[in-house]
Amino acid sequence: MQSVKIGILGLGTVGSGTVSVLKRNSKEISRRAGRGIEILRAADKNLDSPKTCDLNAIDLTDDAFSVVNDPEIQIIVELIGGTGIARDLVMQAIENGKHVVTANKALIAMHGNELFAKAQEKGVTIAFEAAVAGGIPIIKAIREGLAANRIEWLAGIINGTGNFILTEMRDKGRNFADVLAEAQALGYAEADPTFDVEGIDAAHKLTIMASIAFGIPLQFYKAYTEGISKISQEDVQYAEELGYHIKHLGIAKKTSQGVELRVHPTLIPKRRLIANVNGVMNAVVVKGDAVGPTLYYGAGAGAEPTASAVVADIVDIVRALTTDPENRVPHLAFQPDSLKDTPILSMSEVVTSYYLRINTEDKPGVLADITRIFSEQDINIEAILQKQPEEEEGTVPIIMLTQPVVEKNMDEAIAQIEALDTVKHAIMRIRMESLG
Amino acid sequence: MQSVKIGILGLGTVGSGTVSVLKRNSKEISRRAGRGIEILRAADKNLDSPKTCDLNAIDLTDDAFSVVNDPEIQIIVELIGGTGIARDLVMQAIENGKHVVTANKALIAMHGNELFAKAQEKGVTIAFEAAVAGGIPIIKAIREGLAANRIEWLAGIINGTGNFILTEMRDKGRNFADVLAEAQALGYAEADPTFDVEGIDAAHKLTIMASIAFGIPLQFYKAYTEGISKISQEDVQYAEELGYHIKHLGIAKKTSQGVELRVHPTLIPKRRLIANVNGVMNAVVVKGDAVGPTLYYGAGAGAEPTASAVVADIVDIVRALTTDPENRVPHLAFQPDSLKDTPILSMSEVVTSYYLRINTEDKPGVLADITRIFSEQDINIEAILQKQPEEEEGTVPIIMLTQPVVEKNMDEAIAQIEALDTVKHAIMRIRMESLG
Repeated sequence: MQSVKIGILGLGTVGSGTVSVLKRNSKEISRRAGRGIEILRAADKNLDSPKTCDLNAIDLTDDAFSVVNDPEIQIIVELIGGTGIARDLVMQAIENGKHVVTANKALIAMHGNELFAKAQEKGVTIAFEAAVAGGIPIIKAIREGLAANRIEWLAGIINGTGNFILTEMRDKGRNFADVLAEAQALGYAEADPTFDVEGIDAAHKLTIMASIAFGIPLQFYKAYTEGISKISQEDVQYAEELGYHIKHLGIAKKTSQGVELRVHPTLIPKRRLIANVNGVMNAVVVKGDAVGPTLYYGAGAGAEPTASAVVADIVDIVRALTTDPENRVPHLAFQPDSLKDTPILSMSEVVTSYYLRINTEDKPGVLADITRIFSEQDINIEAILQKQPEEEEGTVPIIMLTQPVVEKNMDEAIAQIEALDTVKHAIMRIRMESLG
Repeated sequence: MQSVKIGILGLGTVGSGTVSVLKRNSKEISRRAGRGIEILRAADKNLDSPKTCDLNAIDLTDDAFSVVNDPEIQIIVELIGGTGIARDLVMQAIENGKHVVTANKALIAMHGNELFAKAQEKGVTIAFEAAVAGGIPIIKAIREGLAANRIEWLAGIINGTGNFILTEMRDKGRNFADVLAEAQALGYAEADPTFDVEGIDAAHKLTIMASIAFGIPLQFYKAYTEGISKISQEDVQYAEELGYHIKHLGIAKKTSQGVELRVHPTLIPKRRLIANVNGVMNAVVVKGDAVGPTLYYGAGAGAEPTASAVVADIVDIVRALTTDPENRVPHLAFQPDSLKDTPILSMSEVVTSYYLRINTEDKPGVLADITRIFSEQDINIEAILQKQPEEEEGTVPIIMLTQPVVEKNMDEAIAQIEALDTVKHAIMRIRMESLG
């Protein structure tokens, strides 16, 4: 059978990794796919800069549109990233009736709805396994492997930089800023770390997983994001003492009111497997009503792990090339006409447990004030840890774990406690999940 | 579009779970599959015994062949188990041009080669996700999700009963026989626990995973199996002290000499995620050359977790009903004409590290004898733990961890050490894997 001809857009880290994997494992891959996969052309805007892969026998250009418009090419592999030129190229490829494989989470999370609609119209597939959690086949697991289930929730460590920072803070007692600087030096974190540490990157990935889990349109702009930059060494240690690790989680949960879509630091019981996912590794827990909790773990970034997902998508498309488009796996797991517009809940409506650190003056009556306010807001306390006064400040940290409460009540309680004369600092709050 | 009509053979635990999941989640499932899935008929040899699922609107019979021969039925779901009648029914279903979904690991591991050849000839699919690790979509992950990779090795906790026993032994200091009796009372273990604790069940599953990972025919009869019944409480504790957990692993590894296929108790460093998979849960680590190590975790047995995998297979087949058979995912991941007859290595050729417990008399010169024998067999010692003499016996347990060595050398060394006058007991040996 004739080889399938592909064109690669972007020869950066992932693009070079994809070329390397396709060349090195070409026999293994075609033994699986049933036919060869040939990289006919590749485009990169900086052809003069050195590349880390063997580009022999590949027709190179700096004009990506010429690849997209090449009638010989059947599959376009978009590895440029971002939502500018990448979007135009993908749209043009679809218009030209080509299948698309992409690792671009921002593009899918922000423009997936229109891209999928166009792809549907043209009878082509957009595959995006590499957009979420790198080499972990999590899209396939949720979309196909768990197709029997009503997915109840999913929760993931889906940003390696953030997990590296939190792991170092816990294992070595270091501070956020210090570890971030190292991560930047090591190349884990970008010069502008906002996307990683403030949860935007994780929210892109979470948005995509939530859509395929619950059968809802992509709604990135409704995701709640809270970063890890405010997590202090003392919070890490108090959490530890209480039996928890702090992880930066993306959480999507279906409730009777709607869908929760939120990225924030989270206390997780240490005994959970996901609490022990360390360093730059990623993991996602998916809870289905039939299967119960399942977990998927692996490298969430890097040249070859991401290339692994890109190439798996290429093989899937090759296998389905002759399939009637109606019978292919739908982009968002559910048939396009049966996506539901379930509302995304605002954070004030979300119910979670909390870790609170309240620094108060060491005076009688403080705890009575706090517990009275909690009681008025229907907040039940699960555990209290009161520490010795800190010498220099004369304040006492009170650590509290609460039972689940709706966030608006917690907001109100915190506002009232912060208004007390005896409370001089802003209260630190971190949400908790049992993930059981 | 018309519903797809299926027939279920066997209404035991998994059969009833499958009916329940298909009925409860029918809307969710058809939103994904694009069409309804209708259980037209079901067969069970004990129709009079009470069933745990709603059988309303299903045509029941005690003649399974009448279901297999029903021209209206497109997919046969075999949930009887074993290699007797189940094999005849599956063969007949294929002959009749029907697709088959099965949870039957023994059937696939022992007769898969002939069944797949017949299915290939008839242009139908045999799907068997539920045969390995229950609800974890591990077949899909290896076969499709990691299609870009040369798989280097995989290692799994793939028998829940065995893992429950080892977890209880470690956490509660209990003995093997004691926990086994409880597992039988709880219904985790069969009255005849041989299949579970001696590694036969795990070897069935390992055989299947190895074939799809390496592209080799199914060769169950060449798998090495060693059970956990000889593991003592003191071994569990010494392992703990040295930083390891003991797990019953199925391991498949590709080396330059051939393929290793082995089930045995294994020491794993505690820091590995899989070392922390406890109770009846299953997990599989798969190492690909591009993606690195990935891990898949979930319930490995039980009515609804297994049904989750059965139904996912049904949805896959429904989606591919109109596909040209040539373009479907091959049964063993690789195209049938490109399976390779890579030899399965005998255990004497396998290279691993070892944990050894040698009970010797407390006399001078013993350690010198042992280390001389090791040296002659090219065995390097990584760590030694020498304990106080045990009062009643006057013997000293010496615990040793070795560096990797070929098993035949270790066999020879153990034979020589056991022949020493000062060594009164058989040496306990447990293989070690770093799984890094």
